Amino acid sequence: MRIFIIGTGNVATHLSAALLKAGHDIEGVCGRDFSHTEELAKKLNVEPFSSVSSIPADADVYLISVSDDSIADVAAEMPDVEGIVAHTAGSVPISALVRFSHHGVFYPLQSFSKSRTIDMSRVPLCIEGNDICTADTLTTLACTLSGDVRPMTTEQRAHLHLAAVFASNFVNCMYAEAETILKESNIPFSIMRELIAETAAKAADIGPTASQTGPARRGDTSVMNRQMQLLPDHELQKLYSFVSKRIQGRYKPADK
Amino acid sequence: MRIFIIGTGNVATHLSAALLKAGHDIEGVCGRDFSHTEELAKKLNVEPFSSVSSIPADADVYLISVSDDSIADVAAEMPDVEGIVAHTAGSVPISALVRFSHHGVFYPLQSFSKSRTIDMSRVPLCIEGNDICTADTLTTLACTLSGDVRPMTTEQRAHLHLAAVFASNFVNCMYAEAETILKESNIPFSIMRELIAETAAKAADIGPTASQTGPARRGDTSVMNRQMQLLPDHELQKLYSFVSKRIQGRYKPADK
Repeated sequence: MRIFIIGTGNVATHLSAALLKAGHDIEGVCGRDFSHTEELAKKLNVEPFSSVSSIPADADVYLISVSDDSIADVAAEMPDVEGIVAHTAGSVPISALVRFSHHGVFYPLQSFSKSRTIDMSRVPLCIEGNDICTADTLTTLACTLSGDVRPMTTEQRAHLHLAAVFASNFVNCMYAEAETILKESNIPFSIMRELIAETAAKAADIGPTASQTGPARRGDTSVMNRQMQLLPDHELQKLYSFVSKRIQGRYKPADK
Repeated sequence: MRIFIIGTGNVATHLSAALLKAGHDIEGVCGRDFSHTEELAKKLNVEPFSSVSSIPADADVYLISVSDDSIADVAAEMPDVEGIVAHTAGSVPISALVRFSHHGVFYPLQSFSKSRTIDMSRVPLCIEGNDICTADTLTTLACTLSGDVRPMTTEQRAHLHLAAVFASNFVNCMYAEAETILKESNIPFSIMRELIAETAAKAADIGPTASQTGPARRGDTSVMNRQMQLLPDHELQKLYSFVSKRIQGRYKPADK
């Protein structure tokens, strides 16, 4: 398919590279920051565009991978196109693109960084279309990239994105708290590598309810009290206490 | 070395299997619950003991892998032994074993479950001894199991264990919150597998400070407000708000 990419961030970079690799024809890239746009266009060996109002109108699919707040602006500025216009955002409803007769969503569930290689064939691609043919075309496109393609409504996707904030962003915050605690004792964060890998793998394999361990899970108040004393500030103590209570609330004493 | 195992839980099970595999002579296993003790003893092909006061006094190393609160009781009931007595707990000081002339700590930093295979050669083993020879013997023993052996004081170990609660137990709680959110939309938790694996790998590779992403990191208040509305109860909203503030507090707006 002929694909046009709008946006030059992490998602646009990873998706466009995967699309090229899958044999699609990337028609061009458009972005606000022209040096980023040129950089990505060069990587893909396509033409860079700086204004969304002047992009070609003959692509089969336009993928809008810009910040959530900018999607409406991009949609308003784009020329009238016959092809499918889809955004890649978790939290933005499909209706943001209602201007176009064929519109949809192409949401990859992954935390992308430019510096990291991602195996796109394992990334869940969540698809929505405003009609059955649009959904079908986006699904066909997604299947050329990934073995995990799923239809998903706007409402489901909003919940999925929210769950991802907990399972990725908030998880990373817990890693950062651990790093802060370790720094005080001159222990490098790298000591955590195997523990965090196993914690992630175990939860994925047997589910987080079965894989919960630790003092709060066991109701071991003496360890919890000692750990509270070790924490360097009141805010961190509040976090420790709050999360411990969440864990304790999930398990009745008889489940120990 | 001749090793005697006290305890039949997850740590005792994994450590004793690794010790046997490394060619050590497991002299016996002692535990409170005799059916668990028989089960582990059978696996190791050694004698089971039900009372800690009647265990043989000629082992080179006694490993006490029981719950934190029971370590003092076990130490009090044990016969006088010449060998090294070491516990495997993160939060218990070395002084809990001061009764014995040679005592120490042999703390594996990993979340063990009986049902899961762990590559012990990659598990950090944190060693402390009451004198240099004891520390050396425990280090030699640890090096037969793992390529990651580290000397560690009681105080450092307490901080390490606390950090592990954040990076493993609290992380798992975040996975569980994600699972709850997904359940409401009939989305299986397994969709998270690649995201949580990449989140863990990225933090381990580049550190959690550099790898933080998400609405709170970007200061995207419109997404955060919408997500708050989606949360099913006030407690979860409090957690969302608290952790988001922790993330925002780590990054000045200029770092965006």
